[in-house]
Amino acid sequence: RGDFLYGRGISDDKGTLASRLAAVRALKAVNGRLPARIKFLVEGDEEIGSPGFEDFVAEHRELLAADACLWEGSGVTWEGQAVLPLGVKGLLYCELRCRGTARDVHSSWATVVPNAAWRLTWALATLKDQDENILVKGFYDDVRPPTKAERQAVKAMPDEAEDFAKSLAIDNFVLGLKGRKYRSRHYLDPTCNIDGLTSGYQGPGSKTILPAQASAKLDFRLVPDQDPHDIERKLRKHLDKHGFEDIEIVTFGAEHPARTGLDEEWVRVVRETLKDVYGQDPVIVPTMAGTGPMYPVVKMLGVPTADCGVGNPDSRIHAPNENIREQDYRTGIKAAAAVIDAFGRWRP
Amino acid sequence: RGDFLYGRGISDDKGTLASRLAAVRALKAVNGRLPARIKFLVEGDEEIGSPGFEDFVAEHRELLAADACLWEGSGVTWEGQAVLPLGVKGLLYCELRCRGTARDVHSSWATVVPNAAWRLTWALATLKDQDENILVKGFYDDVRPPTKAERQAVKAMPDEAEDFAKSLAIDNFVLGLKGRKYRSRHYLDPTCNIDGLTSGYQGPGSKTILPAQASAKLDFRLVPDQDPHDIERKLRKHLDKHGFEDIEIVTFGAEHPARTGLDEEWVRVVRETLKDVYGQDPVIVPTMAGTGPMYPVVKMLGVPTADCGVGNPDSRIHAPNENIREQDYRTGIKAAAAVIDAFGRWRP
Repeated sequence: RGDFLYGRGISDDKGTLASRLAAVRALKAVNGRLPARIKFLVEGDEEIGSPGFEDFVAEHRELLAADACLWEGSGVTWEGQAVLPLGVKGLLYCELRCRGTARDVHSSWATVVPNAAWRLTWALATLKDQDENILVKGFYDDVRPPTKAERQAVKAMPDEAEDFAKSLAIDNFVLGLKGRKYRSRHYLDPTCNIDGLTSGYQGPGSKTILPAQASAKLDFRLVPDQDPHDIERKLRKHLDKHGFEDIEIVTFGAEHPARTGLDEEWVRVVRETLKDVYGQDPVIVPTMAGTGPMYPVVKMLGVPTADCGVGNPDSRIHAPNENIREQDYRTGIKAAAAVIDAFGRWRP
Repeated sequence: RGDFLYGRGISDDKGTLASRLAAVRALKAVNGRLPARIKFLVEGDEEIGSPGFEDFVAEHRELLAADACLWEGSGVTWEGQAVLPLGVKGLLYCELRCRGTARDVHSSWATVVPNAAWRLTWALATLKDQDENILVKGFYDDVRPPTKAERQAVKAMPDEAEDFAKSLAIDNFVLGLKGRKYRSRHYLDPTCNIDGLTSGYQGPGSKTILPAQASAKLDFRLVPDQDPHDIERKLRKHLDKHGFEDIEIVTFGAEHPARTGLDEEWVRVVRETLKDVYGQDPVIVPTMAGTGPMYPVVKMLGVPTADCGVGNPDSRIHAPNENIREQDYRTGIKAAAAVIDAFGRWRP
């Protein structure tokens, strides 16, 4: 339709995969051969936290050995700059379950009967304060400070906060953050997020009960070098220390953060190639705010990553009308071919 | 079935009403006339907070004028003592609604986007601390201290805490309360209870979202002379003062507490009558932990109340298999007739 192609997963990330297959075919057609050996690593569980991926990588190190990796699924800005992400955040996703009494009771008993919803509320309030400080002891211990180059790259990224605030109908972001500080926090800081709360009566109007159970879904986005399993242990200790031994932690996902250094030669190669293809320096994103299974590649295999792709700022990934622009797809093929070619010259 | 009669509402409170109608009929049959003029005040909205009752009473003071009132719906202990309640708690039932963003967003934005569930959690945590102190400024200002007689009556009530704890499968009540202190808190103290929590994702497993909205159902049980409308104003002030101006309070119910004094002559009359009929002194309950529309009678009409009835400790009111014992029903008729007779002699 018009300049756009629509389709489920066309931006995240079938379009980018297709552009790379097309690039391989084009290189073979023009040159008769590829300038280097190419491996495609396709992992189908990214959206559910890649639960088996670390084990798979550990068992197949030789099969997966490589000099460099072109990561999946980035795109371009409306201004036509390529976006070059170098990292992802990690994730700990868990549910806190508080069980009080064997059954809900009449709320007149709030005088003496423990209320699971209150206990959950108090427990949650010990995890993060209103100034957004995460209070779990040792939570920030392993945070690797961003390098000067990473901080400068984040500073140089385009400012999209105002449009985003408008689309959310909010006047301010947390702590009134704007500009460089807003981006720095968004791309470089870990989080503690409540994804859901459930307890007691949720229907219309009133029902006077004291709920037997209460639960909260939580996710922590982690930055290098935080370890989701270590954070889970610290969360347990924190709850115990604050008198919430009875609150159960059920973990649904744990992924390590990862980041390729801006000083990697591979990053320089991709950056210069994208500058050639797109006509201007790409936007360097030292780390994305989202999560992906990059840690097994970067840390376990020791393979540096860089990223480019065919998405656009309104690709609506995971949403209805997911789309890419035909022009971005065509340029994406050229970019992938140029990166493969540059890789061949860099590592002949 | 056996010694029991079953039926929806048979204990709360058709059984008591029927026993009193039978008593009136019996007195007429035996004596040819009643010893005094009797009025029945039947109000059908008690279970939804009697929203129109105060206005009705204000408009019909003369019609409802009386020297004393035999309140609805008490019963007997397993040991066969009559239970004589003299008061009820009031209630403020409301919902706190926190709206953050125009829509849920991906949880990677927890870095900078305000989270409604966090704001609600923080707001709730300012309302009551883990030592069960209600922190709304001025909340306790109007609490009328119980009299010595009221405290002694609560002290003398039977101890049912252990059985109750067993049925709830809990080891301890709040603050480890037992015995006299447990009863004193249950019958004489106001509460702040979370009836329900709702926000974001509530399904199985994980979904990484930052919820746009969060809400909590709350009820406050109030004791004389707290005013539910005053408590609502104080709650609003409290939220504003703590930076939660954006959290809306939607009120679903407001009832005043009420209590007839133990020193009322009418209480003495009913107490002595019940002692005669049941063969032992009744259990005096200066105030019940639940709520009912007693305030318009006691405070607006100036009519002292006392209570007796046909329920038993396992009448299962509001639950399946609501029941009364046939024997309690028969004695209840005798008790009602004796109280009417005593009233006639007291106010001939």
